[in-house]
Amino acid sequence: MIIVFKKDATEAEKQHVYEKIEELGLRHQSIIGEELTVVGVIGKEDAIRTLPFEAMPGVDYAMPILKPFKLASVELKKRTVVDVDGVKVGGDEVVLMAGPCSVEGHDMLMEIAEDVKESGAKILRGGAFKPRTSPYSFQGYGKEALEYLAQAREATGLKIVTEVMGPNDVELIEEYTDILQVGARNMTNYQLLSRVGKSSKPVLLKRGFAATVKELLMCAEYILSNGNMNVILCERGIRTFENGTRNTLDLSSIPAIRHQSHLPVIVDPSHGTGKSEYVAAMSKAAIAAGADGLIVEVHNCPEKALSDGEQSLTPEQFNTLVKELRPVAHAVGRKM
Amino acid sequence: MIIVFKKDATEAEKQHVYEKIEELGLRHQSIIGEELTVVGVIGKEDAIRTLPFEAMPGVDYAMPILKPFKLASVELKKRTVVDVDGVKVGGDEVVLMAGPCSVEGHDMLMEIAEDVKESGAKILRGGAFKPRTSPYSFQGYGKEALEYLAQAREATGLKIVTEVMGPNDVELIEEYTDILQVGARNMTNYQLLSRVGKSSKPVLLKRGFAATVKELLMCAEYILSNGNMNVILCERGIRTFENGTRNTLDLSSIPAIRHQSHLPVIVDPSHGTGKSEYVAAMSKAAIAAGADGLIVEVHNCPEKALSDGEQSLTPEQFNTLVKELRPVAHAVGRKM
Amino acid sequence: MIIVFKKDATEAEKQHVYEKIEELGLRHQSIIGEELTVVGVIGKEDAIRTLPFEAMPGVDYAMPILKPFKLASVELKKRTVVDVDGVKVGGDEVVLMAGPCSVEGHDMLMEIAEDVKESGAKILRGGAFKPRTSPYSFQGYGKEALEYLAQAREATGLKIVTEVMGPNDVELIEEYTDILQVGARNMTNYQLLSRVGKSSKPVLLKRGFAATVKELLMCAEYILSNGNMNVILCERGIRTFENGTRNTLDLSSIPAIRHQSHLPVIVDPSHGTGKSEYVAAMSKAAIAAGADGLIVEVHNCPEKALSDGEQSLTPEQFNTLVKELRPVAHAVGRKM
Amino acid sequence: MIIVFKKDATEAEKQHVYEKIEELGLRHQSIIGEELTVVGVIGKEDAIRTLPFEAMPGVDYAMPILKPFKLASVELKKRTVVDVDGVKVGGDEVVLMAGPCSVEGHDMLMEIAEDVKESGAKILRGGAFKPRTSPYSFQGYGKEALEYLAQAREATGLKIVTEVMGPNDVELIEEYTDILQVGARNMTNYQLLSRVGKSSKPVLLKRGFAATVKELLMCAEYILSNGNMNVILCERGIRTFENGTRNTLDLSSIPAIRHQSHLPVIVDPSHGTGKSEYVAAMSKAAIAAGADGLIVEVHNCPEKALSDGEQSLTPEQFNTLVKELRPVAHAVGRKM
Repeated sequence: MIIVFKKDATEAEKQHVYEKIEELGLRHQSIIGEELTVVGVIGKEDAIRTLPFEAMPGVDYAMPILKPFKLASVELKKRTVVDVDGVKVGGDEVVLMAGPCSVEGHDMLMEIAEDVKESGAKILRGGAFKPRTSPYSFQGYGKEALEYLAQAREATGLKIVTEVMGPNDVELIEEYTDILQVGARNMTNYQLLSRVGKSSKPVLLKRGFAATVKELLMCAEYILSNGNMNVILCERGIRTFENGTRNTLDLSSIPAIRHQSHLPVIVDPSHGTGKSEYVAAMSKAAIAAGADGLIVEVHNCPEKALSDGEQSLTPEQFNTLVKELRPVAHAVGRKM
Repeated sequence: MIIVFKKDATEAEKQHVYEKIEELGLRHQSIIGEELTVVGVIGKEDAIRTLPFEAMPGVDYAMPILKPFKLASVELKKRTVVDVDGVKVGGDEVVLMAGPCSVEGHDMLMEIAEDVKESGAKILRGGAFKPRTSPYSFQGYGKEALEYLAQAREATGLKIVTEVMGPNDVELIEEYTDILQVGARNMTNYQLLSRVGKSSKPVLLKRGFAATVKELLMCAEYILSNGNMNVILCERGIRTFENGTRNTLDLSSIPAIRHQSHLPVIVDPSHGTGKSEYVAAMSKAAIAAGADGLIVEVHNCPEKALSDGEQSLTPEQFNTLVKELRPVAHAVGRKM
Repeated sequence: MIIVFKKDATEAEKQHVYEKIEELGLRHQSIIGEELTVVGVIGKEDAIRTLPFEAMPGVDYAMPILKPFKLASVELKKRTVVDVDGVKVGGDEVVLMAGPCSVEGHDMLMEIAEDVKESGAKILRGGAFKPRTSPYSFQGYGKEALEYLAQAREATGLKIVTEVMGPNDVELIEEYTDILQVGARNMTNYQLLSRVGKSSKPVLLKRGFAATVKELLMCAEYILSNGNMNVILCERGIRTFENGTRNTLDLSSIPAIRHQSHLPVIVDPSHGTGKSEYVAAMSKAAIAAGADGLIVEVHNCPEKALSDGEQSLTPEQFNTLVKELRPVAHAVGRKM
Repeated sequence: MIIVFKKDATEAEKQHVYEKIEELGLRHQSIIGEELTVVGVIGKEDAIRTLPFEAMPGVDYAMPILKPFKLASVELKKRTVVDVDGVKVGGDEVVLMAGPCSVEGHDMLMEIAEDVKESGAKILRGGAFKPRTSPYSFQGYGKEALEYLAQAREATGLKIVTEVMGPNDVELIEEYTDILQVGARNMTNYQLLSRVGKSSKPVLLKRGFAATVKELLMCAEYILSNGNMNVILCERGIRTFENGTRNTLDLSSIPAIRHQSHLPVIVDPSHGTGKSEYVAAMSKAAIAAGADGLIVEVHNCPEKALSDGEQSLTPEQFNTLVKELRPVAHAVGRKM
């Protein structure tokens, strides 16, 4: 922690800060500049962070130096490969997850599952419990949808990822799914993070649309610190002033995460753009930037979709996309 | 809903859209412009919204016309006054809520409660369960803190507001508190919204830091549609590129909410700015803009606060502030 | 400047940084923490800033400590009162500027000028040269409009403020106007800033809609450092994700500017909200927050306005507004 | 234009709106819904846009239907290839522009020019006139730097791109450069746009950091409507709440521009991220997303750079990057 004193801070004010630091068993060291005095606080990060230095008289501002996350940090470990019942996320291969926004029925799910498997997907996505902006919108078929997902896994061998909306749902969903998805709107639902942190199933943690990469990593830390080390991060766009796309897909989060963390990161170009016609370009870009996988919305009849139809690909479009993605993956040294 | 066709949309594509509209029992009417054709879809809003028009061939884009919220709408009702066990929020009087970010002990809470009551506060705030960015930070004293809050109410007559972080906590917290607070990070925690919507206690719903006013009203709609009509909205700043303040306090949300909704709205200048030295200016501004109340962090020793010390006022500063606020409230025709 | 070394920085890398610092005649001082080493660079700010420390091997990041502006800083001077030919901006009195977005003719301007003067305005605003998003939109009546403005001043005694769009226009506009306005879109047009910095007329500098308060102050510094000390800042809203208003009016910029600078600051609630029905609430809030004045769009027939009709008040609405503003100004100890 | 009436709009108010439309020689057509009435206004876009409908009594809001740009629109033309004295931008080949942020001397420029040419660049970038945040920072070597750029072109055959900061500089810079660059801070400097629109040299127009893609295209329209059809757009990042990168590089602008415009688009990963270690990932992503080229900062000694050292590649890093980019370009069917 670096503390910057105000120009007119008195000696008594400075002494008071030094005492507070010493009370915690920490050390401090001053740098007397031409205009200002700054103080470095030395010691264990957790102890330092408990003091609200900016509330102390004479202090202009305080700047933390140490990163607030530890278990998610690249300093702990170089790279994590998450093993989803045999499918490796974060390794050499770029992993494709695909499927409908919502599970809307048995037959549609089976059809889509077979199609995306054929095209090269390894994991089937599909919402059973849906977080919707309006209380009057379709909220998902719940347990029935989970049954269909399990049947689709049985039939195709695809693994399954589905969203969990609250801590009480984890027990039920764990029974069916291979990956527990925490959605963007729940990224800071700490009770949910703690609960999935105690699960034995891998977690797909989506970046909140107003979260920085650092905050995403802090939320991953909540899961890791509860014991679950199998966390896959997902970039799905952030909210900005640009209204030509549903969100602004921030692909620079990929090198930023690589730089700071060992956790694998995938990209959701469907929510990231909100427009099916931009999905192909952004999928290629994501893989070129180093993403470990993609999660893509595919619907056999987008115009009948009960949610997110305008951003879903048809199975044919997905098939074409995968063919275009392979050379890009190879061009950056990845398998697909 | 207004649908805009692409310039090169074919007759067959248009017919297809018309059929989909008719299948739902809705009507449509076209406007043939010089360059483009647009179609108005006429009927019940909920039915219209189920169709993903933008996924249909030939459609450029679709624009909803009707507002997505009903129970929160000013068209339902002019003004709601929420009665918090005798304290009226949304009426003539500007209501002050004040207290520490976290309840850190019995004595500190009692002291602060007596001080803020003396200054003019009607409601005591204090966190028992705290949502914290880091899993390693102080998470609140839980039930013990709730007991202290109840004791402070007993001693001072102040009403109590405290945060509820998940649906499972509601039952416990309901027993103690007068207002259930849903924090900004949980604004889209729909399971929590549904649960507090079934409570008999009023709800203080904070605006998510990346939420538009419309989205805040949609989240209020979740609560209202579950039967709880006593919702107080709270502006507490949105996330922008400006990093000189913790958030950007969006006071224009006050006239915007008034224009669209009957629900009362209060302002949190402490989280909204993150700096105790800006709290006074923004408190006055909030009341001048028409806020029904304020919720202000007050700590008897901000530099020892376990959270948010840098944005807390001392009881003396709060006392001075209230004296400055009264003439502003009177200048805009409110009591305080 | 504080330099933070990477955990694995070598001694040679650190030595290299120290040498670079010494080459510039600066001093350095290290703080050896438990996990990291940080170095304070001591000396003249301008010299320090010339070194791109983050490009040096072994450096994680560098954080500037000193504020980048000097002449605009509150450390230079407590408060500036700008004298606009007798009208004082930044003193005890809250100054009202009002008038049409564009000067659309002689008679309309005269009428509006007389009306706003009657209501209490001291300065007449009106665009002669208009920056418009579309090259096909009305671009202002240019010199003819300047003549009308001068005639309105003659007739009413109001002072005049009008926008200058490029360095070449300054000479002409200076002849007519009392204040040179630099618009939000031109806040970083450095050639224009330098040119108005050499003018003898006061400058109204509007905050760019993507500019932080610090950046606004840096742009003021461009003007001040060219010799013109009469700069009035103007908050007019920033661009955010909220699309219910044209911009998000950031009133916390008022205490933030007060805290850092001696320059007066006024608020433009018309552009700040884009909606005439929100102008009254935000005008009161601005004054309550400590603004030194307002600049409000007033048109005698908003629905015929060639620009910004939807955010203009009628002269009657402005008259009512001023009556409501006076008690607010008095409540915060200002005259009006 | 679609006009939505308020629910309680009177017949007289509606009639008034109809009359205003008819006065302009336009037609209107109403759609009477169950809750609301909407009106389509039919006729020439430019005429429609002159009426401020939202200022008329009874009108809730108005939504434009037609795109505001014409000459930049994909409806005018499928694709433009800009010919920079023989180097084609927007064709099959991905074009690399590289060089220092600022031209800092004759020898450094020559050295860098030869290196980047060797690696595969076709165009040399280098600032002669620099827009700097601080008036006290290095502002560029001006005409002397232009001379060096011309000498580097002579020696290497590379074409030249350099920034023009104001309309008065165009004449001088035109003599030397092959492309006139309009920087992000000047994207809405309309006098500059008009002036470069009258030049015979191609223009590189950078997206303002708070500009939507639509606004970028409107600014291109300013140039095109002045007669210069050779405009290259440049994505260089937008300003968001994410502070881990200098800007948020919005690569979805590439498919968005393709979808709406015929103009070529390149990407600046150096300013887009502000960190040299992220440049490679984002360069690959840009090409995979369909960019027509890149503009990359390369400095032979980043740590001595007078500006932007922390985001510059060394010539060796650039050489490695180009080798990595080629397979990506080929993977998406482009030459390099």
